[in-house]
Amino acid sequence: MAKEKYVYSFEEGDGKDKQLLGGKGANLCEMTRIGLPVPPGFVITTQACRQFFKEGKKLPSGLIEQIEEAMIVLEKKTGKGFGNPENPLLISVRSGSALSMPGMMDTILNLGLNDETVEGLARLTGDVRFAYDCYRRFLQLFGKIALRVDEEHFEDFFEEEKKRAGVQLDSELTGKTLKKLCEQYKAIIKKHAGRELPQSPKEQLVLAVDAVFQSWMGKRAVDYRKQFNITPAMADGTAVNICTMVFGNMGEDSATGVGFTRNPSTGENRLYGEFLINAQGEDVVAGVRTPQPLKEMRISMPGTYRELEDLRHTLEGHYREVQDFEFTVEKGTLYCLQTRNGKMNAWALIRTSNDMVNEGLITEEEAILRVPPDMLEQLLHRRVDPNFVGNPIAAGLAASPGAASGKIVFSADRAEHLGKLGEKVLLVREETKPEDIHGFFAAVGILTSRGGRTSHAAVVARGMGKPCVSGCEDLSIDTNVGELRVSGLVLHEGEVITIDGTSGHVYLGQVPLVDPEFVEDLLTLLEWADEYAKLEVWANADTPEAVEKAKEYGAVGVGLCRTERMFNQPERLPIVRELILAETVEERRDAIDRLLPFQLNDFKEIFRIMEGKPVTVRLLDPPLHEFLPTVEELLTDINYLKSFNQSISVLEELPQTMKILGHSLEQYIPPVENALKQLEEIRRTKLDERLSAGKEDLLRKVKNMSEVNPMLGHRGVRLGISYPEIYEMQIQAVLEAAALVIKEGIPATPEIMVPQVCTVQELLWVHRIVQMVHDGVKKRHGVDVKLKFGTMIEVVRACMRAGRIAEVAEFFSFGTNDLTQATFSFSREDAENKFLPLYKERQILQDNPFEVLDVKGVGRLMMTTVEWGRKARKDLKVGICGEHAGHPRSIEFCHDIGISYVSCSPPRVPIARLAAAHAALKAQTRSPVV
Amino acid sequence: MAKEKYVYSFEEGDGKDKQLLGGKGANLCEMTRIGLPVPPGFVITTQACRQFFKEGKKLPSGLIEQIEEAMIVLEKKTGKGFGNPENPLLISVRSGSALSMPGMMDTILNLGLNDETVEGLARLTGDVRFAYDCYRRFLQLFGKIALRVDEEHFEDFFEEEKKRAGVQLDSELTGKTLKKLCEQYKAIIKKHAGRELPQSPKEQLVLAVDAVFQSWMGKRAVDYRKQFNITPAMADGTAVNICTMVFGNMGEDSATGVGFTRNPSTGENRLYGEFLINAQGEDVVAGVRTPQPLKEMRISMPGTYRELEDLRHTLEGHYREVQDFEFTVEKGTLYCLQTRNGKMNAWALIRTSNDMVNEGLITEEEAILRVPPDMLEQLLHRRVDPNFVGNPIAAGLAASPGAASGKIVFSADRAEHLGKLGEKVLLVREETKPEDIHGFFAAVGILTSRGGRTSHAAVVARGMGKPCVSGCEDLSIDTNVGELRVSGLVLHEGEVITIDGTSGHVYLGQVPLVDPEFVEDLLTLLEWADEYAKLEVWANADTPEAVEKAKEYGAVGVGLCRTERMFNQPERLPIVRELILAETVEERRDAIDRLLPFQLNDFKEIFRIMEGKPVTVRLLDPPLHEFLPTVEELLTDINYLKSFNQSISVLEELPQTMKILGHSLEQYIPPVENALKQLEEIRRTKLDERLSAGKEDLLRKVKNMSEVNPMLGHRGVRLGISYPEIYEMQIQAVLEAAALVIKEGIPATPEIMVPQVCTVQELLWVHRIVQMVHDGVKKRHGVDVKLKFGTMIEVVRACMRAGRIAEVAEFFSFGTNDLTQATFSFSREDAENKFLPLYKERQILQDNPFEVLDVKGVGRLMMTTVEWGRKARKDLKVGICGEHAGHPRSIEFCHDIGISYVSCSPPRVPIARLAAAHAALKAQTRSPVV
Repeated sequence: MAKEKYVYSFEEGDGKDKQLLGGKGANLCEMTRIGLPVPPGFVITTQACRQFFKEGKKLPSGLIEQIEEAMIVLEKKTGKGFGNPENPLLISVRSGSALSMPGMMDTILNLGLNDETVEGLARLTGDVRFAYDCYRRFLQLFGKIALRVDEEHFEDFFEEEKKRAGVQLDSELTGKTLKKLCEQYKAIIKKHAGRELPQSPKEQLVLAVDAVFQSWMGKRAVDYRKQFNITPAMADGTAVNICTMVFGNMGEDSATGVGFTRNPSTGENRLYGEFLINAQGEDVVAGVRTPQPLKEMRISMPGTYRELEDLRHTLEGHYREVQDFEFTVEKGTLYCLQTRNGKMNAWALIRTSNDMVNEGLITEEEAILRVPPDMLEQLLHRRVDPNFVGNPIAAGLAASPGAASGKIVFSADRAEHLGKLGEKVLLVREETKPEDIHGFFAAVGILTSRGGRTSHAAVVARGMGKPCVSGCEDLSIDTNVGELRVSGLVLHEGEVITIDGTSGHVYLGQVPLVDPEFVEDLLTLLEWADEYAKLEVWANADTPEAVEKAKEYGAVGVGLCRTERMFNQPERLPIVRELILAETVEERRDAIDRLLPFQLNDFKEIFRIMEGKPVTVRLLDPPLHEFLPTVEELLTDINYLKSFNQSISVLEELPQTMKILGHSLEQYIPPVENALKQLEEIRRTKLDERLSAGKEDLLRKVKNMSEVNPMLGHRGVRLGISYPEIYEMQIQAVLEAAALVIKEGIPATPEIMVPQVCTVQELLWVHRIVQMVHDGVKKRHGVDVKLKFGTMIEVVRACMRAGRIAEVAEFFSFGTNDLTQATFSFSREDAENKFLPLYKERQILQDNPFEVLDVKGVGRLMMTTVEWGRKARKDLKVGICGEHAGHPRSIEFCHDIGISYVSCSPPRVPIARLAAAHAALKAQTRSPVV
Repeated sequence: MAKEKYVYSFEEGDGKDKQLLGGKGANLCEMTRIGLPVPPGFVITTQACRQFFKEGKKLPSGLIEQIEEAMIVLEKKTGKGFGNPENPLLISVRSGSALSMPGMMDTILNLGLNDETVEGLARLTGDVRFAYDCYRRFLQLFGKIALRVDEEHFEDFFEEEKKRAGVQLDSELTGKTLKKLCEQYKAIIKKHAGRELPQSPKEQLVLAVDAVFQSWMGKRAVDYRKQFNITPAMADGTAVNICTMVFGNMGEDSATGVGFTRNPSTGENRLYGEFLINAQGEDVVAGVRTPQPLKEMRISMPGTYRELEDLRHTLEGHYREVQDFEFTVEKGTLYCLQTRNGKMNAWALIRTSNDMVNEGLITEEEAILRVPPDMLEQLLHRRVDPNFVGNPIAAGLAASPGAASGKIVFSADRAEHLGKLGEKVLLVREETKPEDIHGFFAAVGILTSRGGRTSHAAVVARGMGKPCVSGCEDLSIDTNVGELRVSGLVLHEGEVITIDGTSGHVYLGQVPLVDPEFVEDLLTLLEWADEYAKLEVWANADTPEAVEKAKEYGAVGVGLCRTERMFNQPERLPIVRELILAETVEERRDAIDRLLPFQLNDFKEIFRIMEGKPVTVRLLDPPLHEFLPTVEELLTDINYLKSFNQSISVLEELPQTMKILGHSLEQYIPPVENALKQLEEIRRTKLDERLSAGKEDLLRKVKNMSEVNPMLGHRGVRLGISYPEIYEMQIQAVLEAAALVIKEGIPATPEIMVPQVCTVQELLWVHRIVQMVHDGVKKRHGVDVKLKFGTMIEVVRACMRAGRIAEVAEFFSFGTNDLTQATFSFSREDAENKFLPLYKERQILQDNPFEVLDVKGVGRLMMTTVEWGRKARKDLKVGICGEHAGHPRSIEFCHDIGISYVSCSPPRVPIARLAAAHAALKAQTRSPVV
């Protein structure tokens, strides 16, 4: 049997063979292979490690010989000697398995030092302090790793020594002190390891390799592999990487630094980085000296600078990504110690990716895949300056992204008032209601102490693209008094705070913000993306303004126009309330007749903007309670009124009583008169405003309508069947608007969508109304409006009946918010405040299913639904318009199950376009096109 | 081609061939064939009808000849002559297709009458009035059907004539008047039909047959077939049945009557019925004469009575069911005009079925299938005497079956108080809460004005087997004042009402009730049923009392023991409230420690009763809001207290004010003092009781816990994961109780069931607790309790993940109530009060899915779940413990998809046992055992 080869020099190793060489080792070989000036070294294979355990934790035969041979080669290459005090060869020893695996051994640096070579190092660098600092570190690491001396022994002693020396920073210790310390470290080793530190570098090396192998079966490493299910097929044993130490502190012709092949902040195609002459990397970290920008090296070390320029091109030519690399110059020789893909902000990532396509370095596909879709979020909102350092005063839910600073106001009226005066105001409420809507328009952001990510505040703010932090329970808000209490502070109207709807943080005062960046490069990238995507991206948009924005962001259809959201305006809201509270058909018709013109005009405007692209109108699905005051509010008002009137009458009779007694009121009981005046004042102002006569009646109606579980209540198509006149009006508005716009010469393509459907009978019921209205419009306007008729799929039963429903519906649109609620039996509003955080913490659920589509449960239902639906209607169009539609992981799933389009909020349209391309490209990789 | 045979005499026709002879015709042939004395007659086939339309609405050739031949045979058989005034042969003409089909032509009676034969009839019966009354009826029917004269013409005239004669009842008209009327009817025919009444009976007959055929394509018949999807394969054309008229009013040797082969009230095996000598059936209907019991015929007409006895045996021998038959005796000859299966109450049906098995008439299988399972309900509760005639004063939901009369009380305390004094009281509330539970124990029934079939009142009442009418919105209840207002009445405590929880009706005063009948015969039938059933029947029972009852009714396991329901007792409830409201682990543990002994004892008692049969304990799944007061209630109390205190303080300061003024209080303002005294009194009594100091704090906690959609909230296993100590206590109680009972020498088989599971991770979490507790119990008691661990399947996601979940769960139990809610996105509490009635009315849904399992949606999910679950665990036990488990149609579905057991409320156990046998027997018929 041929002798097993356990040792590969960096030149020999196959940079692709991570199984044999480990990830780190393979990487070093790769770098060497492409001609980077990596310090010489070699890798001991994972096979050696496996053999080590096979033989009962003994180094396999022949290994020591191979290591010795490799060390001789190293000595030749570097011209240094292992253990030679004149010019000592020092090395680092590192573990490295096929998978990166925290929990294994640390690195041993400066192996090769002993009592003699340390002196040589001091001479060569002219720096005794440095040499003994290296020795100290080596002693501690070697003692700990190879000789299993508890690290605490060294550290406790080191701290004592610093105290004795009267210094605070490690770097303040003198060479002399450090030298003494090394002696004492050796004594610690002797005491606790039961043996002297081996002075022979070769012995040191053998012990180190043995220790690295042992660490593979150490408790931490085994636990880690168990927890992350790492099987031997994925990584089996660790390699050992031996690399020559190089030093940037060998004089003025030495240096150390970090470089980026392009500017990671701006993406500019130019060498970028910083360096320090005659220094070690630690000097940079310790902040003792300030590094210089790399471009200054052109003057101080012009030759090295040219080498770095070459290195930059070599790196990008090979890796085809921006590289972040570390280098050291030892006596004029440049060494590249490490390289990895550079981390960049969205701006730089997009720019460099586009540039690289133009330079021919990468393909469009690669550029697209390189940009994580969620990253685009950075570009779409103002945000807190990433350089800002400061603590938030409170944290709530990140309900609508973006940041805003403004003066606190506690009511929509005040917001409007101050907004008109040009103030930037932040609306702060316990929770918001539709009647606060004018406050949303006036405010730069919304902060609430109650409600989840689907609360009124959150949903409306997202729709408007305004920042919102909701459910911020740290706050105690008293809108009557006008006080906001938080962590010991008491804030009043007019004081400035900043909210960050991307993180959920709330800051005191004005915090520096940076503007959104939506640039040419992004548009180019998205155009490429559209070419590869199979899924279309539509938008959820309820008003002409939102539709305009959606189109601008590249939506090719409106997938969800929520008619009830069209009513969120001060002049419409009272009519909606009348509609909801109507107790007779006449009352209802009256409200409807007044709403029709509003909806008609909105639809006309929307059709004009979309110019023939599909506009999906969802018929009324009001969460009724959102449009009405609560029983609690009404009761409080009513009781207030009652007790107020009671007090009034007692006091009002008092003057009369006094008169009977024959005394003048002023003389005896002025306080009573005062009280009367005050009450009169209250009556004149606050009371009239708050308490109208109809409260008792309203309370009765509200109680009548109140539901135990409104989410599962009288809503959606159920209302449409109870009150057909409402749906009739809406369908009328849609089709008439389309007809009128078509008459203007602009194409219009309405799609009518029915919410909350659970049986085909409901659809047939609405379809009859559609046909009737359609015929009427045709007769009146002479236009035969082409329309599609379809249904939301958000009720589980609709999934089960998909085949039958598809016989009537021309399209499906998954409402994954409601579908997720029904599939989990989780009320989102309750779950996100109560048990979902705990479920994630206790690993019951990996993700919040309202954020990341639950593929195993909800997804399985969806898959079946698409399959059954298409069996009944081959060309069934299937969309998704829940919030998941804007999230990349969910979009990938949608692509995989053959969804036709995703419809998300306008700001997420660019993200969805990119994600759709990702999904298509990834699917190609998984199963090549036949 | 042989001449087509269109006419079959009753002797010739094949009683099985309904397609050719129609249902009615085939039946007459069958009766004749088995030797019943049917009046002679014949059938014209549906083939003739089809031919009629084929030939453009012409009677097919040869038909008239065949009819004439058949008439000649009839004349011979009866000795009468068609059109012979001496002894006229009269016949009836009826339509009859293969399916019974209302909306087709009526019957023409007495065809064969004309101006001459009517005189003959008068002579023969000696009754001119009768003869002309027959003639009048014939003229009207024939005029309407055969000659298409609008019926109104006859009826208007008839009413005028009655007015002229000064009579109110038809029967008061004299023969002379009727004779005159006939003349006028003939004039009407002439005027509106444009022709004379044909005097020739033959011509009459041909016209009548033509009219019957025409009616097959009449609008009403066509519409009917369309609506009920009756295809030609099911019924194609109508037959025409010609039958000799017989008369029971031909003298003292004639009679008419109805008979049952056994007593339909008691099931006694003895001829039963009533008769009238010398009378027509109409005399019975008109109530002019009172019929005699049939047994009296033994004396008055002994020969005929013997014939009837023979008839009874012939009928039962052939039909093998109790028959309800009509007969006429014409001049000593008995004719049987009709027979059908006798309708019986449950008691009689069971007794006769059992008897028939014993007599060898039918098999056990037939006996089982003969009794509709739902019918057993009659036997299990007191009910309103079926003979009672009276109008309810209100109607609500039939929430818990049975009827009860009692004195109204408006509070649980009063119920308890009066109950102890021996009064029968009915608890009347707007709605009930757990703290009313002592009122449930004391009351004979519960009536609420709010809440559906799953409201607290309904559920608790059903559990206790007490009658309940819930959601009776006609009532206006003011418990404070102690008034119940309904349809103009004002009722107070102590007044007696009766509620019928089977129908939902409420009656004023004491209504006669009859006791439940649970008899030997039923036990026999159920024993037979158990032999054929594949499904086991278990019971939902939460307390030892309920378990006792369940066992008595034949449950072979407890499928659902709801631990939270075990707390529904006055001494436990406050502890549960503490548990729910606990804000720290310590508070929670404290409450738990006090609950443990209660649960432990209950479980011990339950295990003792079940003696080793499985007892499935569901861990806590409290609908929290049911255990807490509402925000509204608390607010009302708090505001009451506030305004009260405010008034008090104003008034309290008044005497002080008066003193300042130097006048004595008594002299000037006695009303103020009175008011003060009153307030003091209120404070002393009501206030202390209603308003404890903790209300504000309670309000805060309740608001904190309140959920938007409690049905989808923090419940079930979600609570178990949030507060593991609760589940730990419950599991401890179950396993320790089992160990202690086993030590007593009684076997115990606990099954622990987790509610609201949506992912296997939840199950694993609870399973770890079970293992830990199990080991502890084993150590402490030395008993290794055998237990099964399983899950409710009531969340849709659990269905989707059935395979994975079955890896951990040893059994599934479908909670079809919650599963239906989640599948439809219908909140039961809201849906049943709001849109479900409308959905049924508008045919959107055929059934209330909370009553009848929705096979297409929920059922499809269940089927998939069973399949996936058993794929992962072959011997997976699958039960169903929702309310559907007690309903026969749902049980049949459960059988079909391979469910192992159904678990229903104890009173429904007998129903379920019978239904399980039905399901098994029906499945055999569908696909014979291989």
